[in-house]
Amino acid sequence: MAALDPVLNDIDTDLDNALERLFAFLRIPSISTDPAYAGDCRKAADWLAADLTALGFETSVNETSLHPVVLAHKPKPGAPHVLFYGHYDVQPVDPLNLWETPPFEPRIATDAAGNKKIVARGASDDKGQVMTFVEACRAHLAMNGELPCGVTLLIEGAEENGSQGLPEWVAQNREKLASDIVLVCDTGMWDPATPAITTSLRGLAYFEVKVTCADRDLHSGFFGGAARNPIHVLSRIIADLHDAEGRVTLPGFYDGVHERPPEVVEQWRGLGLTAEKFLGPIGLKEPAGERGRLPIELVQSRPACDVNGIIGGYTGEGTKTVIASTASAKVSFRLVDDQDPKVLAETFEAFVRARVPDDCRVEVITYKGSRAISLPFDMPELEIAKAALAEEWGVPAVTVGAGGSIPIVGDFKRILDRNTLLIGFGLDDDRIHSPNEKYDLRSFHKGTRSWARILAAFGARG
Amino acid sequence: MAALDPVLNDIDTDLDNALERLFAFLRIPSISTDPAYAGDCRKAADWLAADLTALGFETSVNETSLHPVVLAHKPKPGAPHVLFYGHYDVQPVDPLNLWETPPFEPRIATDAAGNKKIVARGASDDKGQVMTFVEACRAHLAMNGELPCGVTLLIEGAEENGSQGLPEWVAQNREKLASDIVLVCDTGMWDPATPAITTSLRGLAYFEVKVTCADRDLHSGFFGGAARNPIHVLSRIIADLHDAEGRVTLPGFYDGVHERPPEVVEQWRGLGLTAEKFLGPIGLKEPAGERGRLPIELVQSRPACDVNGIIGGYTGEGTKTVIASTASAKVSFRLVDDQDPKVLAETFEAFVRARVPDDCRVEVITYKGSRAISLPFDMPELEIAKAALAEEWGVPAVTVGAGGSIPIVGDFKRILDRNTLLIGFGLDDDRIHSPNEKYDLRSFHKGTRSWARILAAFGARG
Repeated sequence: MAALDPVLNDIDTDLDNALERLFAFLRIPSISTDPAYAGDCRKAADWLAADLTALGFETSVNETSLHPVVLAHKPKPGAPHVLFYGHYDVQPVDPLNLWETPPFEPRIATDAAGNKKIVARGASDDKGQVMTFVEACRAHLAMNGELPCGVTLLIEGAEENGSQGLPEWVAQNREKLASDIVLVCDTGMWDPATPAITTSLRGLAYFEVKVTCADRDLHSGFFGGAARNPIHVLSRIIADLHDAEGRVTLPGFYDGVHERPPEVVEQWRGLGLTAEKFLGPIGLKEPAGERGRLPIELVQSRPACDVNGIIGGYTGEGTKTVIASTASAKVSFRLVDDQDPKVLAETFEAFVRARVPDDCRVEVITYKGSRAISLPFDMPELEIAKAALAEEWGVPAVTVGAGGSIPIVGDFKRILDRNTLLIGFGLDDDRIHSPNEKYDLRSFHKGTRSWARILAAFGARG
Repeated sequence: MAALDPVLNDIDTDLDNALERLFAFLRIPSISTDPAYAGDCRKAADWLAADLTALGFETSVNETSLHPVVLAHKPKPGAPHVLFYGHYDVQPVDPLNLWETPPFEPRIATDAAGNKKIVARGASDDKGQVMTFVEACRAHLAMNGELPCGVTLLIEGAEENGSQGLPEWVAQNREKLASDIVLVCDTGMWDPATPAITTSLRGLAYFEVKVTCADRDLHSGFFGGAARNPIHVLSRIIADLHDAEGRVTLPGFYDGVHERPPEVVEQWRGLGLTAEKFLGPIGLKEPAGERGRLPIELVQSRPACDVNGIIGGYTGEGTKTVIASTASAKVSFRLVDDQDPKVLAETFEAFVRARVPDDCRVEVITYKGSRAISLPFDMPELEIAKAALAEEWGVPAVTVGAGGSIPIVGDFKRILDRNTLLIGFGLDDDRIHSPNEKYDLRSFHKGTRSWARILAAFGARG
């Protein structure tokens, strides 16, 4: 077994170069949900493929129905083999005016406490996290000429658009994705000092609702009081989605939702994550969802519904006395336990249609949905990874549930019959999906060291 | 008294030149509500001032708190004097993609029935209408070297922005605006064959509501279910504004609203303007407002509330799992009878604040409001104008109420103690405030001839 210390030492001394590489990656505006950036998505795929090729991986850039996936392969006969998954695409950047510096001009910022942060769209989600793994591989190769175990990287470009095209591609390329375990670096730490392995994820169902009333925009003076207003129709639908207790009103919505055992809830209560502690840092005080639940319960083990966007009529400066022809909203649901996004799609569409007047029209677009995921606690790799993380961070790693969704994890289980270890170094204040996204330099540096340790530990097992 | 026939004949033969002049005016994108177009507003004022100066008017371009007003004066001692009011500013043009041709590249389109239409933003509201009066003056001056009566033109540039700055300017310049009667050309015909004089107008109160919850945009996976969503808060406010009967729920909202006498409602019913006839042309069937009222009643003698615009969160293509920090809506009310926009502003703000959670913030911006207006039926000028219109169109002119608002009419009464005659040649299908705004060539041509007749008739009276 090759020595680990030189590898960790190399990561420390090469940090500035690793940042240079990450910055080059971050400069590519690979926004997957906006067709205007399709060329940049390809550019990001090509950049990553070139980097992995230079490291000696057998690399290919493969077409899907949306953006290409990067596949990189470096086998090690006789050793365990890991499949690492990440994504090179990033969220849109609006509202752009709230960014302190341009989102695709990465920089190092230092906070009042002297902590350095990498600021850019994608710094945390997920380019920075992906590069922790790539840099760990680079250090092993630089010091030992080989990796501790076999590695395949699968880096997609449509994660922020529901991983469109990826499950199909995975199903058609099963043999290229053979592995013992899947590794994903797209989650967070428990807190800045405590590493975490995520063992459950909420599912997602995402819809767009477009209501059309009159066949043209109308003058509200001539028609106000007589013509139906699609913003009113849409607002009624949204208002009806929750009752006064914060519960979602869709029929049967809570059918597949299970209560956590009292001891789990007590354990959560023991963590001391009060509403004030959870919501205070974002300027809020009162939990908005179901009454009488802990914040951690609301975001980890309870489903939720949020309108992610709404637009209709005149939204410029000043006034315009218009009754819009159309108004639309993006509505998503976070799912837990046995909630089925396909059943929800039918219930939701019926709920919406029942609230649209007969002489108006409504279009309900269903984006990709995913069920919630719970990973087994008896994976041998889980204990190995926990031990490696504890060595790096000096405290035990905790296993947690996460409120977000990574649908492809379910596909890996279904299509490849492989479990996934979700290990990430993001922090709650990373502002992912928001202006001024950042990734702590410490997350990047110690994340890289963590992967170097985990790979070494996996290899030692083989 | 100068002969009228040569004047009317000159209008007929000069029509192509008149259109050239109107097109030059329409090419200036004088959008008053968007500060980016402030320079174009001034350009439109300067264009009009130059044209009126060339006609021999004593002309000035005068500063207000927003865009300048054009004042043009041509006295005729011993004759009656009219003050003509119009506006050179236009509505915003979004959604731009729905325009068949660029909004500021005017053109003549011919419909299936062979009717010619002037297509451009402002063609009807109000540049085309203003130019019917200017062209009538031009023809009188060309044929007779003088106008039949004294004329002052007051053309403002902020009508679409609540006439910001105009009442103050009028109050400070009373003596320059001395007249016997005010004329306004910013209303419509009863139908394409029947001219109309508008004798009542609804009032307007216009607000913007901006709700802020968390102090940043949030990831809906991490926070969904626990963090307050401002789109939900705003949708609840909007949904609460109307009850199931289509009535506005604000406390005391209907206090100043009077029922029309049964004989008036019967007269309306006799006009045969069914919901199908009124709403069919815009693709609707069922009136949206208060149950059990005629469409004409809903838009002329009943108040109404409409959300004119709403925006929040991600509104681009595809999906973004975000909980927005803020969401905002523009909300306006059409007022009738004795409803007071100042009282309404207080009621509305209290209504909104009562629906915003304690840990969120709300800003309520009040734009200018105006009371409803009813003009006296015993003005001698009303009969003179009706007779002149009947001569031009071959059918009697009807007197009607209008659903829209022209707040300055109330100011003319209050500040100048003068009544206003609202005579316009717009049609219901002019798409004012909407993409593909048009003004029938017939409206422009016969509108000009109508003003030539009305001026002559006023002059003959003096």
